[in-house]
Amino acid sequence: MGGDAGPSVVISALARSMQRHPFVRFIIHGDETALNELIRKRWGKFGQHVSVRHAPGRIRMEEKPSTALRRGRDSSMWRAIASVKTGEAEAVVSAGNTGALMAMSMYQLGLIEGITRPAIASLWPTKRGQTVVLDCGANIECDAEQLVDFAVMGEAFARAVLGIERPTVGLLNVGSEDVKGHEAVKDAAHMLRSASLPMEFSGFIEGNDIAEGTVDVAVTDGFTGNVALKTAEGTAKLIATYLRSALKRSFLSRLGAVLARGALDALRRKLDPRTAGGGLFLGLNGVVVKSHGGTDALGFASAVDMAIDMALGGINKNIVADRAGVRPEVVAS
Amino acid sequence: MGGDAGPSVVISALARSMQRHPFVRFIIHGDETALNELIRKRWGKFGQHVSVRHAPGRIRMEEKPSTALRRGRDSSMWRAIASVKTGEAEAVVSAGNTGALMAMSMYQLGLIEGITRPAIASLWPTKRGQTVVLDCGANIECDAEQLVDFAVMGEAFARAVLGIERPTVGLLNVGSEDVKGHEAVKDAAHMLRSASLPMEFSGFIEGNDIAEGTVDVAVTDGFTGNVALKTAEGTAKLIATYLRSALKRSFLSRLGAVLARGALDALRRKLDPRTAGGGLFLGLNGVVVKSHGGTDALGFASAVDMAIDMALGGINKNIVADRAGVRPEVVAS
Repeated sequence: MGGDAGPSVVISALARSMQRHPFVRFIIHGDETALNELIRKRWGKFGQHVSVRHAPGRIRMEEKPSTALRRGRDSSMWRAIASVKTGEAEAVVSAGNTGALMAMSMYQLGLIEGITRPAIASLWPTKRGQTVVLDCGANIECDAEQLVDFAVMGEAFARAVLGIERPTVGLLNVGSEDVKGHEAVKDAAHMLRSASLPMEFSGFIEGNDIAEGTVDVAVTDGFTGNVALKTAEGTAKLIATYLRSALKRSFLSRLGAVLARGALDALRRKLDPRTAGGGLFLGLNGVVVKSHGGTDALGFASAVDMAIDMALGGINKNIVADRAGVRPEVVAS
Repeated sequence: MGGDAGPSVVISALARSMQRHPFVRFIIHGDETALNELIRKRWGKFGQHVSVRHAPGRIRMEEKPSTALRRGRDSSMWRAIASVKTGEAEAVVSAGNTGALMAMSMYQLGLIEGITRPAIASLWPTKRGQTVVLDCGANIECDAEQLVDFAVMGEAFARAVLGIERPTVGLLNVGSEDVKGHEAVKDAAHMLRSASLPMEFSGFIEGNDIAEGTVDVAVTDGFTGNVALKTAEGTAKLIATYLRSALKRSFLSRLGAVLARGALDALRRKLDPRTAGGGLFLGLNGVVVKSHGGTDALGFASAVDMAIDMALGGINKNIVADRAGVRPEVVAS
């Protein structure tokens, strides 16, 4: 459990999250002895907010989803999802193997009625605030109907969790003109224009529109979304590297960097992928959040906070209600 | 001509480029009177390095490629490409409508033997130098054989223009494991592994590997490449905005920004899309470079320099020779 970082990260994260959400109770699945030992060391009322369930197995990061599904029934991941399935928990958060988490969640929780494929959404910082981008990697190839599902799930998320009454939704394409793009995006645009949904469909957007914050929800297939997400992360890291080495070049720039340290730290926090809350699995009968694999307590706590917000916001009720607003005759085309 | 910026930008750019490449002669297509007027104002030997050809028409930025192809025969764009076709010029540079430039170049110059589709390549700054990324938008959907063509064109470019003897080439995917991705990337990987090419095939790479500089050449379809390129540009702009506003927040950070100005300017130059040389059209019987539409003299000069390097490097001879190294029986699969 806890991805590469292990149980101590999870315990620290829950202690952080508990301070923000004192009404929430946590069930931790994993090695009972190790977990109880860690919990005992915490001061205050932490022990009263958590309960531990022993799970002897664990899913390795490099395990294939199909193998995990077959052999991982005694794992902390499987059992954590099971506690959502039984209704004992409202949401599950894991920093483990993404593919296994998705496969086990699909198997145990199933899809929301009317949704044909789940999606992984992520929250990007933008000039105007934040934008939900989906799918970021659950579906390598997507047809028009799946893109429409993603639009519905994205707007439902923006309404339930970000509190935007009527979110704007754009389809990621290679140009904003109607004639551009492949059949799937063109058909999806057609379907979204004739759908009756609590959102504004903004038509096609381009890659730079994400960071501009042109729309609240950016919809794309999982291949493009995953490449875009990782390209953006890579670009941010590259600029940070350039900035650090540039600020070391001369005495004056070093001095400047020291004086501007507070500002540069604020910038770093704004772009910190740990605070983005990880990957949000949408379309499942239950809230599932994937925290980054190499995350620390701050990152895991942010994923836990997101899961709490999603559960409290009632995102899945929105999805069920809104999916009905897509005209069936158009969907069938 | 000259995109949104017009002839004066082109003239300034050529004057810049002339200083770096005094042996090169330029043929400028466009409004004769306006161009001659601008050239007369330049001091020194500039007039001896350029000749002007009158072209009464121009392609508008929003014109459809098909319309441009039908009605644009009197345009500066058409005639500039024609001067490459006739052998009078070695390369053409335009800041105009990308789709029209590609359609007219395809029509007049045709494709290199063995190449089925042209590609738009672009040079990205990375931690280790620069990486060629292609296709950045010429082909919305690509099969395995086209991705292999792009790999050949990319390594030929890296050898001829960047001077890398045996470039490393990666296929953009959603994970580095062999089992990931759609059929086209998996088949392309299979073909590249059995091809005999003057490159190292590095297998699959992810979006963040571009900025890391993991490979010299990153290959993908035009949809993904275009979205990735624009997402990276948007991310860089967003960070610049954050940085500016962060450095204005307090007296100390303002002072820090003043002291670090030289370093921050260097960073800005490093990330300046104007110096990236624009979009390089590969696979055509002739060198075609698209300068950014909203470019200035610095950007256009950088595109001109790139066109000169491509013509001198003999990239197309490399492509013809290397394409033959892809095993035909594998290509046919």
